[in-house]
Amino acid sequence: MEKINFDEQFASLSEYWQPQIIAEVNDTHVKAVKLKDEFIWHKHEEDEMFLVIKGTLTIKFRDRDIILEPGESLTIPKGVEHKPVADSEVHVLLIEPKGTVNTGDAESEWTYHPESH
Amino acid sequence: MEKINFDEQFASLSEYWQPQIIAEVNDTHVKAVKLKDEFIWHKHEEDEMFLVIKGTLTIKFRDRDIILEPGESLTIPKGVEHKPVADSEVHVLLIEPKGTVNTGDAESEWTYHPESH
Repeated sequence: MEKINFDEQFASLSEYWQPQIIAEVNDTHVKAVKLKDEFIWHKHEEDEMFLVIKGTLTIKFRDRDIILEPGESLTIPKGVEHKPVADSEVHVLLIEPKGTVNTGDAESEWTYHPESH
Repeated sequence: MEKINFDEQFASLSEYWQPQIIAEVNDTHVKAVKLKDEFIWHKHEEDEMFLVIKGTLTIKFRDRDIILEPGESLTIPKGVEHKPVADSEVHVLLIEPKGTVNTGDAESEWTYHPESH
């Protein structure tokens, strides 16, 4: 049982858009991910919570954008298409079920399986 | 689908040690709670994550203390007795399964069921 310091976790991330598991809480994973530039449109079969630690994150939806600043969070319900966009580097915690993959239904070169690394 | 601002959530809390549900992510609840002074010894049947937003939180265990500062988190495995202590006001996010009660196995006047409020 050891505490986690988020700054240290983010400092250890070398790649954008590759979420790393930092904690396991029952059936849930908490992941740290650095974002920069544009991701792809996708949706998940599970709800996914974004919690912004640093930077400004725009999450695009088909009908609007939601902008998150540090200290803000958004839960994206399962099945809702979204596309994260970060004009500058953003540090995010993700709260989602074990096994959730970053690209959801949009398997591509962006797909990253943290359990395999 | 609306974003959550943690400062606003904490500003709306009037009582210490009474976690309020601020988000539902699949089978998980994210709760905001203000802590001050000492809580009681207890344990849960589920893992519980503490994420400190403001202040310094000491979590006492039977064999040691762990001190959490803002930007730090700790996952307490199920079954592990603990007692949170906050010398000054602390703002915490809790990540735990739906139905988790603040006092775990130690039902008392401190017990609070957020679903009932």
